[in-house]
Amino acid sequence: MSGRQHTKDDVIRAAGRLFARRGFHGTSMRDLGSELGLLGSSLYSHVDGKNELLVEVIRSGAELFQTLATRVVYEDASATERLGRLIEGHVRIVTEHIDEATTFLNEARFLPEAERSSIIEMRDRYEQSYRAVLKDGIASGEFRRDLDPVLAAILILSTLNAIDRWYRPDGPRAPGDIAARIHHFVMSGIT
Amino acid sequence: MSGRQHTKDDVIRAAGRLFARRGFHGTSMRDLGSELGLLGSSLYSHVDGKNELLVEVIRSGAELFQTLATRVVYEDASATERLGRLIEGHVRIVTEHIDEATTFLNEARFLPEAERSSIIEMRDRYEQSYRAVLKDGIASGEFRRDLDPVLAAILILSTLNAIDRWYRPDGPRAPGDIAARIHHFVMSGIT
Repeated sequence: MSGRQHTKDDVIRAAGRLFARRGFHGTSMRDLGSELGLLGSSLYSHVDGKNELLVEVIRSGAELFQTLATRVVYEDASATERLGRLIEGHVRIVTEHIDEATTFLNEARFLPEAERSSIIEMRDRYEQSYRAVLKDGIASGEFRRDLDPVLAAILILSTLNAIDRWYRPDGPRAPGDIAARIHHFVMSGIT
Repeated sequence: MSGRQHTKDDVIRAAGRLFARRGFHGTSMRDLGSELGLLGSSLYSHVDGKNELLVEVIRSGAELFQTLATRVVYEDASATERLGRLIEGHVRIVTEHIDEATTFLNEARFLPEAERSSIIEMRDRYEQSYRAVLKDGIASGEFRRDLDPVLAAILILSTLNAIDRWYRPDGPRAPGDIAARIHHFVMSGIT
Protein backbone atom coordinates (compact mmCIF):
# COMPACT_ATOMS: atom_id res chain seq x y z
CA MET A 1 0.00 0.00 0.00
CA SER A 2 3.03 2.31 -0.03
CA GLY A 3 3.62 4.79 -2.81
CA ARG A 4 0.50 6.82 -2.32
CA GLN A 5 -0.92 9.19 0.24
CA HIS A 6 -2.82 7.57 3.08
CA THR A 7 -5.96 9.12 4.45
CA LYS A 8 -6.94 8.89 8.09
CA ASP A 9 -9.59 6.34 7.04
CA ASP A 10 -6.89 4.10 5.56
CA VAL A 11 -5.05 4.23 8.86
CA ILE A 12 -8.20 3.39 10.82
CA ARG A 13 -9.02 0.46 8.53
CA ALA A 14 -5.50 -0.93 8.81
CA ALA A 15 -5.65 -0.55 12.60
CA GLY A 16 -8.92 -2.52 12.59
CA ARG A 17 -7.29 -5.35 10.62
CA LEU A 18 -4.40 -5.60 13.07
CA PHE A 19 -6.47 -5.20 16.25
CA ALA A 20 -8.79 -7.95 15.00
CA ARG A 21 -5.90 -10.28 14.22
CA ARG A 22 -3.44 -9.58 17.04
CA GLY A 23 -5.47 -7.70 19.64
CA PHE A 24 -5.00 -4.11 20.77
CA HIS A 25 -2.16 -4.88 23.15
CA GLY A 26 -0.51 -7.14 20.57
CA THR A 27 -0.35 -4.35 17.98
CA SER A 28 2.27 -1.61 18.02
CA MET A 29 2.33 1.64 16.06
CA ARG A 30 5.35 0.12 14.38
CA ASP A 31 3.28 -2.91 13.23
CA LEU A 32 0.73 -0.48 11.89
CA GLY A 33 3.43 1.46 10.06
CA SER A 34 4.64 -1.78 8.41
CA GLU A 35 1.09 -2.69 7.41
CA LEU A 36 0.77 0.66 5.63
CA GLY A 37 4.35 0.84 4.37
CA LEU A 38 4.95 3.94 6.50
CA LEU A 39 7.37 4.86 9.24
CA GLY A 40 5.66 4.57 12.62
CA SER A 41 6.51 8.20 13.27
CA SER A 42 4.69 9.49 10.21
CA LEU A 43 1.48 7.88 11.50
CA TYR A 44 1.38 10.59 14.12
CA SER A 45 0.45 13.15 11.48
CA HIS A 46 -2.86 11.22 11.25
CA VAL A 47 -3.58 10.21 14.82
CA ASP A 48 -2.44 10.83 18.38
CA GLY A 49 -1.78 7.18 19.07
CA LYS A 50 -3.14 3.69 19.52
CA ASN A 51 -5.92 4.69 21.93
CA GLU A 52 -7.40 7.10 19.42
CA LEU A 53 -7.33 4.39 16.76
CA LEU A 54 -9.08 1.92 19.04
CA VAL A 55 -11.79 4.50 19.73
CA GLU A 56 -12.23 5.21 16.00
CA VAL A 57 -12.37 1.55 14.95
CA ILE A 58 -14.87 0.63 17.66
CA ARG A 59 -16.99 3.74 17.17
CA SER A 60 -17.29 3.12 13.43
CA GLY A 61 -18.53 -0.41 14.20
CA ALA A 62 -20.92 0.76 16.92
CA GLU A 63 -22.45 3.41 14.66
CA LEU A 64 -23.37 0.83 12.02
CA PHE A 65 -25.30 -1.17 14.61
CA GLN A 66 -26.95 1.96 15.99
CA THR A 67 -28.12 3.06 12.54
CA LEU A 68 -29.58 -0.39 11.91
CA ALA A 69 -31.50 -0.48 15.20
CA THR A 70 -32.84 3.06 14.80
CA ARG A 71 -34.06 2.22 11.32
CA VAL A 72 -35.75 -1.08 12.14
CA VAL A 73 -37.12 -0.95 15.66
CA TYR A 74 -40.12 1.34 15.02
CA GLU A 75 -40.85 0.17 11.49
CA ASP A 76 -44.47 -0.57 10.72
CA ALA A 77 -44.06 -4.34 10.60
CA SER A 78 -44.71 -7.31 12.85
CA ALA A 79 -42.27 -8.10 15.64
CA THR A 80 -41.32 -11.27 13.77
CA GLU A 81 -40.44 -9.28 10.66
CA ARG A 82 -38.56 -6.61 12.57
CA LEU A 83 -36.56 -9.24 14.44
CA GLY A 84 -35.72 -10.82 11.08
CA ARG A 85 -34.54 -7.43 9.76
CA LEU A 86 -32.41 -6.81 12.85
CA ILE A 87 -30.81 -10.24 12.46
CA GLU A 88 -30.30 -9.80 8.73
CA GLY A 89 -28.79 -6.32 9.21
CA HIS A 90 -26.55 -7.51 12.02
CA VAL A 91 -25.23 -10.43 9.99
CA ARG A 92 -24.58 -8.09 7.06
CA ILE A 93 -22.64 -5.62 9.25
CA VAL A 94 -20.54 -8.36 10.86
CA THR A 95 -19.75 -10.07 7.56
CA GLU A 96 -18.98 -6.82 5.71
CA HIS A 97 -17.05 -5.18 8.57
CA ILE A 98 -15.57 -8.19 10.30
CA ASP A 99 -12.46 -6.38 11.61
CA GLU A 100 -14.46 -3.62 13.28
CA ALA A 101 -16.89 -6.18 14.69
CA THR A 102 -14.11 -8.38 16.07
CA THR A 103 -12.34 -5.38 17.56
CA PHE A 104 -15.58 -4.11 19.07
CA LEU A 105 -16.28 -7.47 20.69
CA ASN A 106 -12.82 -8.37 21.95
CA GLU A 107 -11.03 -5.09 22.55
CA ALA A 108 -13.67 -2.63 23.86
CA ARG A 109 -12.56 -3.47 27.40
CA PHE A 110 -9.26 -1.73 26.63
CA LEU A 111 -10.86 1.60 25.65
CA PRO A 112 -10.01 4.62 27.75
CA GLU A 113 -12.60 4.94 30.54
CA ALA A 114 -14.68 7.83 29.09
CA GLU A 115 -15.02 6.19 25.66
CA ARG A 116 -15.69 2.83 27.21
CA SER A 117 -18.76 4.24 28.99
CA SER A 118 -20.11 5.81 25.83
CA ILE A 119 -19.63 2.60 23.84
CA ILE A 120 -21.27 0.54 26.58
CA GLU A 121 -24.19 2.96 26.43
CA MET A 122 -24.50 2.44 22.67
CA ARG A 123 -24.32 -1.32 23.15
CA ASP A 124 -27.02 -1.16 25.85
CA ARG A 125 -29.29 0.90 23.59
CA TYR A 126 -28.77 -1.66 20.84
CA GLU A 127 -29.70 -4.48 23.19
CA GLN A 128 -32.78 -2.48 24.26
CA SER A 129 -33.96 -2.38 20.64
CA TYR A 130 -34.03 -6.18 20.64
CA ARG A 131 -35.87 -6.18 23.96
CA ALA A 132 -38.42 -3.69 22.60
CA VAL A 133 -39.15 -5.88 19.58
CA LEU A 134 -39.36 -8.98 21.80
CA LYS A 135 -41.80 -7.25 24.16
CA ASP A 136 -43.93 -6.15 21.19
CA GLY A 137 -43.99 -9.74 19.99
CA ILE A 138 -44.99 -11.06 23.41
CA ALA A 139 -47.77 -8.46 23.61
CA SER A 140 -49.02 -9.30 20.11
CA GLY A 141 -48.95 -13.04 20.82
CA GLU A 142 -46.26 -13.72 18.19
CA PHE A 143 -43.75 -14.86 20.82
CA ARG A 144 -44.42 -17.04 23.82
CA ARG A 145 -45.94 -15.42 26.87
CA ASP A 146 -43.39 -16.83 29.35
CA LEU A 147 -40.43 -15.44 27.40
CA ASP A 148 -37.96 -13.38 29.43
CA PRO A 149 -37.17 -10.54 26.96
CA VAL A 150 -34.00 -9.52 28.84
CA LEU A 151 -32.42 -12.96 28.69
CA ALA A 152 -33.79 -13.67 25.20
CA ALA A 153 -32.18 -10.46 23.87
CA ILE A 154 -28.87 -11.56 25.40
CA LEU A 155 -29.11 -15.05 23.87
CA ILE A 156 -30.04 -13.75 20.41
CA LEU A 157 -27.18 -11.25 20.49
CA SER A 158 -24.86 -14.01 21.69
CA THR A 159 -25.51 -16.04 18.57
CA LEU A 160 -25.06 -12.91 16.41
CA ASN A 161 -21.93 -11.70 18.17
CA ALA A 162 -20.14 -15.00 17.75
CA ILE A 163 -20.38 -14.89 13.94
CA ASP A 164 -16.98 -13.22 13.64
CA ARG A 165 -15.49 -16.29 15.31
CA TRP A 166 -16.57 -18.80 12.67
CA TYR A 167 -17.65 -16.89 9.54
CA ARG A 168 -15.34 -17.23 6.54
CA PRO A 169 -16.04 -15.13 3.43
CA ASP A 170 -15.12 -18.16 1.29
CA GLY A 171 -17.14 -20.59 3.45
CA PRO A 172 -20.21 -22.55 2.31
CA ARG A 173 -22.87 -20.17 3.67
CA ALA A 174 -23.76 -16.75 2.24
CA PRO A 175 -24.63 -13.99 4.75
CA GLY A 176 -28.31 -13.98 3.71
CA ASP A 177 -28.51 -17.73 4.26
CA ILE A 178 -26.83 -17.44 7.67
CA ALA A 179 -29.29 -14.70 8.68
CA ALA A 180 -32.31 -16.74 7.58
CA ARG A 181 -31.12 -19.81 9.48
CA ILE A 182 -30.38 -17.82 12.63
CA HIS A 183 -33.83 -16.22 12.42
CA HIS A 184 -35.40 -19.66 12.11
CA PHE A 185 -33.28 -20.99 15.00
CA VAL A 186 -34.25 -18.07 17.21
CA MET A 187 -37.94 -18.37 16.31
CA SER A 188 -38.37 -22.13 16.58
CA GLY A 189 -35.31 -23.61 18.23
CA ILE A 190 -34.28 -27.08 17.18
CA THR A 191 -37.61 -28.86 17.60
CA MET B 1 -1.51 -13.25 49.24
CA SER B 2 2.12 -12.63 50.19
CA GLY B 3 3.70 -14.21 53.25
CA ARG B 4 3.19 -17.80 52.20
CA GLN B 5 4.59 -20.19 49.68
CA HIS B 6 2.89 -20.15 46.29
CA THR B 7 2.30 -23.33 44.35
CA LYS B 8 2.40 -23.48 40.59
CA ASP B 9 -1.41 -23.77 40.69
CA ASP B 10 -1.64 -20.44 42.53
CA VAL B 11 0.46 -18.84 39.82
CA ILE B 12 -1.72 -20.32 37.06
CA ARG B 13 -4.93 -19.19 38.75
CA ALA B 14 -3.57 -15.66 39.20
CA ALA B 15 -2.46 -15.61 35.55
CA GLY B 16 -6.01 -16.63 34.55
CA ARG B 17 -7.48 -13.73 36.53
CA LEU B 18 -5.18 -11.21 34.86
CA PHE B 19 -5.46 -12.65 31.33
CA ALA B 20 -9.26 -12.56 31.66
CA ARG B 21 -9.27 -8.97 32.87
CA ARG B 22 -6.48 -7.37 30.84
CA GLY B 23 -5.79 -9.84 28.04
CA PHE B 24 -2.60 -11.85 27.45
CA HIS B 25 -0.73 -8.99 25.79
CA GLY B 26 -1.93 -6.52 28.42
CA THR B 27 -0.46 -8.61 31.27
CA SER B 28 3.24 -8.58 32.16
CA MET B 29 5.13 -10.97 34.41
CA ARG B 30 5.56 -7.92 36.62
CA ASP B 31 1.77 -7.48 36.90
CA LEU B 32 1.53 -11.13 37.82
CA GLY B 33 4.23 -10.71 40.45
CA SER B 34 2.27 -7.79 42.00
CA GLU B 35 -0.94 -9.84 41.98
CA LEU B 36 0.83 -12.54 43.99
CA GLY B 37 2.99 -10.24 46.10
CA LEU B 38 6.13 -11.69 44.51
CA LEU B 39 9.02 -10.28 42.56
CA GLY B 40 8.55 -10.94 38.85
CA SER B 41 11.87 -12.74 38.84
CA SER B 42 10.86 -15.28 41.49
CA LEU B 43 7.96 -16.35 39.26
CA TYR B 44 10.50 -17.99 37.01
CA SER B 45 11.09 -20.69 39.61
CA HIS B 46 7.51 -21.78 38.82
CA VAL B 47 7.20 -21.22 35.08
CA ASP B 48 9.25 -20.44 32.00
CA GLY B 49 7.21 -17.41 31.09
CA LYS B 50 3.93 -15.96 29.96
CA ASN B 51 3.45 -18.37 27.06
CA GLU B 52 3.63 -21.36 29.38
CA LEU B 53 1.04 -19.75 31.65
CA LEU B 54 -1.31 -19.08 28.75
CA VAL B 55 -1.03 -22.72 27.72
CA GLU B 56 -1.72 -23.92 31.28
CA VAL B 57 -4.71 -21.64 31.85
CA ILE B 58 -6.32 -22.53 28.54
CA ARG B 59 -5.59 -26.23 28.81
CA SER B 60 -7.13 -26.44 32.27
CA GLY B 61 -10.28 -24.84 30.84
CA ALA B 62 -10.32 -27.06 27.77
CA GLU B 63 -9.95 -30.22 29.86
CA LEU B 64 -13.04 -29.42 31.90
CA PHE B 65 -15.11 -29.17 28.71
CA GLN B 66 -13.58 -32.34 27.32
CA THR B 67 -14.38 -34.31 30.47
CA LEU B 68 -17.97 -33.09 30.35
CA ALA B 69 -18.47 -34.06 26.71
CA THR B 70 -16.87 -37.48 27.15
CA ARG B 71 -19.12 -38.19 30.12
CA VAL B 72 -22.39 -37.04 28.54
CA VAL B 73 -22.34 -37.76 24.83
CA TYR B 74 -22.78 -41.55 24.97
CA GLU B 75 -24.96 -41.66 28.08
CA ASP B 76 -28.01 -43.87 27.83
CA ALA B 77 -30.50 -41.01 27.65
CA SER B 78 -32.53 -39.20 24.99
CA ALA B 79 -30.84 -36.58 22.82
CA THR B 80 -32.97 -33.92 24.52
CA GLU B 81 -31.74 -35.00 27.95
CA ARG B 82 -28.12 -35.27 26.85
CA LEU B 83 -28.28 -31.82 25.27
CA GLY B 84 -29.69 -30.49 28.53
CA ARG B 85 -26.81 -32.08 30.46
CA LEU B 86 -24.22 -30.65 28.07
CA ILE B 87 -25.76 -27.19 28.46
CA GLU B 88 -26.03 -27.53 32.24
CA GLY B 89 -22.43 -28.75 32.53
CA HIS B 90 -21.13 -26.04 30.23
CA VAL B 91 -22.90 -23.29 32.21
CA ARG B 92 -21.50 -24.74 35.43
CA ILE B 93 -17.94 -24.79 34.06
CA VAL B 94 -18.16 -21.23 32.74
CA THR B 95 -19.68 -19.84 35.93
CA GLU B 96 -17.29 -21.70 38.25
CA HIS B 97 -14.17 -21.12 36.13
CA ILE B 98 -14.95 -17.81 34.51
CA ASP B 99 -11.32 -16.66 34.21
CA GLU B 100 -10.21 -19.81 32.40
CA ALA B 101 -13.29 -19.67 30.17
CA THR B 102 -12.75 -16.00 29.29
CA THR B 103 -9.06 -16.60 28.60
CA PHE B 104 -9.87 -19.66 26.50
CA LEU B 105 -12.35 -17.69 24.40
CA ASN B 106 -10.45 -14.43 23.94
CA GLU B 107 -6.79 -15.32 24.15
CA ALA B 108 -6.39 -18.77 22.51
CA ARG B 109 -5.43 -17.02 19.27
CA PHE B 110 -2.21 -15.90 21.01
CA LEU B 111 -1.08 -19.44 21.91
CA PRO B 112 2.16 -20.67 20.43
CA GLU B 113 1.39 -22.46 17.15
CA ALA B 114 1.78 -26.09 18.35
CA GLU B 115 -0.45 -25.59 21.39
CA ARG B 116 -2.95 -23.60 19.37
CA SER B 117 -3.47 -26.58 17.06
CA SER B 118 -3.96 -28.98 19.94
CA ILE B 119 -6.47 -26.64 21.63
CA ILE B 120 -8.35 -26.14 18.36
CA GLU B 121 -8.52 -29.91 18.05
CA MET B 122 -10.02 -30.20 21.54
CA ARG B 123 -12.52 -27.45 20.71
CA ASP B 124 -13.47 -29.22 17.48
CA ARG B 125 -13.99 -32.50 19.32
CA TYR B 126 -16.18 -30.68 21.82
CA GLU B 127 -18.26 -29.18 19.02
CA GLN B 128 -18.54 -32.64 17.45
CA SER B 129 -20.12 -33.95 20.67
CA TYR B 130 -22.91 -31.41 20.24
CA ARG B 131 -23.28 -32.39 16.57
CA ALA B 132 -23.46 -36.07 17.54
CA VAL B 133 -26.26 -35.43 20.03
CA LEU B 134 -28.09 -33.22 17.50
CA LYS B 135 -27.84 -35.92 14.83
CA ASP B 136 -29.15 -38.53 17.28
CA GLY B 137 -32.08 -36.24 18.04
CA ILE B 138 -32.83 -35.71 14.35
CA ALA B 139 -32.71 -39.47 13.76
CA SER B 140 -34.96 -40.16 16.74
CA GLY B 141 -37.47 -37.49 15.67
CA GLU B 142 -36.86 -35.38 18.78
CA PHE B 143 -35.41 -32.51 16.73
CA ARG B 144 -36.71 -31.17 13.44
CA ARG B 145 -35.74 -33.05 10.32
CA ASP B 146 -34.51 -29.98 8.38
CA LEU B 147 -32.07 -29.00 11.15
CA ASP B 148 -28.48 -28.40 10.03
CA PRO B 149 -26.53 -30.02 12.90
CA VAL B 150 -23.29 -28.23 11.98
CA LEU B 151 -24.79 -24.75 12.14
CA ALA B 152 -27.05 -25.63 15.09
CA ALA B 153 -24.02 -26.80 17.11
CA ILE B 154 -22.29 -23.49 16.33
CA LEU B 155 -25.33 -21.45 17.37
CA ILE B 156 -25.84 -23.37 20.61
CA LEU B 157 -22.16 -23.01 21.50
CA SER B 158 -22.37 -19.32 20.62
CA THR B 159 -25.02 -18.74 23.26
CA LEU B 160 -23.01 -20.78 25.77
CA ASN B 161 -19.67 -19.17 24.99
CA ALA B 162 -21.00 -15.66 25.47
CA ILE B 163 -22.01 -16.32 29.09
CA ASP B 164 -18.68 -15.05 30.39
CA ARG B 165 -19.51 -11.68 28.84
CA TRP B 166 -22.66 -11.03 30.85
CA TYR B 167 -22.76 -13.47 33.80
CA ARG B 168 -22.27 -11.86 37.22
CA PRO B 169 -21.96 -14.15 40.26
CA ASP B 170 -24.07 -11.64 42.23
CA GLY B 171 -26.61 -11.22 39.38
CA PRO B 172 -30.29 -12.21 39.52
CA ARG B 173 -29.96 -15.61 37.81
CA ALA B 174 -28.42 -18.74 39.32
CA PRO B 175 -26.37 -20.99 37.00
CA GLY B 176 -29.00 -23.76 37.10
CA ASP B 177 -31.71 -21.30 36.11
CA ILE B 178 -29.57 -19.91 33.28
CA ALA B 179 -28.93 -23.44 32.00
CA ALA B 180 -32.64 -24.36 32.10
CA ARG B 181 -33.61 -21.19 30.22
CA ILE B 182 -30.93 -21.67 27.59
CA HIS B 183 -32.04 -25.29 27.12
CA HIS B 184 -35.63 -24.10 26.67
CA PHE B 185 -34.51 -21.34 24.25
CA VAL B 186 -32.48 -23.82 22.20
CA MET B 187 -35.29 -26.38 22.13
CA SER B 188 -38.21 -24.09 21.36
CA GLY B 189 -36.92 -20.70 20.37
CA ILE B 190 -38.99 -17.68 21.26
CA THR B 191 -42.33 -18.83 19.83
